[in-house]
Amino acid sequence: MNARLKQQMEFIIEIDKLKTILRQTNVIGETRQENDAEHSWHLAMMCMVFYEYANENAVNMLRVLKMLLIHDIVEIDAGDTFAYDDKGHEDKREREELAAKRLFHLLPLDQAQEFIQLWKEYENRDTPESRFALALDRLQPMLLNYHNQGAVWQKHHVTGERVYNRNKIMAEGSETLWEYAEKLIRDALDKGYLLT
Amino acid sequence: MNARLKQQMEFIIEIDKLKTILRQTNVIGETRQENDAEHSWHLAMMCMVFYEYANENAVNMLRVLKMLLIHDIVEIDAGDTFAYDDKGHEDKREREELAAKRLFHLLPLDQAQEFIQLWKEYENRDTPESRFALALDRLQPMLLNYHNQGAVWQKHHVTGERVYNRNKIMAEGSETLWEYAEKLIRDALDKGYLLT
Repeated sequence: MNARLKQQMEFIIEIDKLKTILRQTNVIGETRQENDAEHSWHLAMMCMVFYEYANENAVNMLRVLKMLLIHDIVEIDAGDTFAYDDKGHEDKREREELAAKRLFHLLPLDQAQEFIQLWKEYENRDTPESRFALALDRLQPMLLNYHNQGAVWQKHHVTGERVYNRNKIMAEGSETLWEYAEKLIRDALDKGYLLT
Repeated sequence: MNARLKQQMEFIIEIDKLKTILRQTNVIGETRQENDAEHSWHLAMMCMVFYEYANENAVNMLRVLKMLLIHDIVEIDAGDTFAYDDKGHEDKREREELAAKRLFHLLPLDQAQEFIQLWKEYENRDTPESRFALALDRLQPMLLNYHNQGAVWQKHHVTGERVYNRNKIMAEGSETLWEYAEKLIRDALDKGYLLT
């Protein structure tokens, strides 16, 4: 078999592990936690459906999709860091840089470079595409937690203010979706899903 | 809230259920079954990585990704039909048509039409994009089953000949990936993962 295809296959097999990386959010109506592969698929669907709400015109949908599909792959080595875990965030970047190197370099060099570039673009949020991708990544767990009556928020004693402050960055990618999220947070407070 | 955004949100919440639709394939190294959302994510990654092996030049990657992301959504209503279940396949098309109508029409009309069009393109396999997408969809469970030492094949008494005959259509989308799959089937037979 040619060496290039062999490397690509190894990567595809290795990333199957993303299906075993659990997030803090539960699947709607289930008691089990969502995993990163499911989450990434859901974000890609949100990109297709909410594309018209990106702040900037002419956002490249293909690049947003690619970013969303790969953005959590580093967690195969680095693990998921819960959004409201300040301690876990201290060395997150370092752990994830190492993970990106190992995982993406299973691929042939040209693809490794492309994927690392996409991942860095996502992390750096310095393009319209990456800001829109981040807005979707922030909205998705809010939607799931809201539709689970805030069970995970309550478990971790998360307040409305924390959710608001952490996620207002969404507005840089999509003002429309951030407006929606603001209403959702207020409603979650009214219903007691979030602590005041 | 505007009516359009409300419809789009309802769709995004409804399709969370794809995470609960189980396939016959197990996640590698796990005893649990893969679900359709994980599977769809994995296919989208395979599209990004194996794009160069599409038979035809100038395959539109964005369209392949969209097709792969949505191709199993109908199973939320219609259920997963195991590849080697002849009986289940008799009324599959009819069940899935109804499901496509209900699920995609949660969206605003223009998006419902776009998504139904993409789904039909995938099902009809009459474009280079849909033939490539199908090749990936056929290869993925073979990879997982092979790396699980054929456990699911053995459970269902599947022979190498059946796997070969069902999947040779892959060649229409990607000769390179079909050649790889042929070797994998032969190797699975040698190792006793598949019945002769």
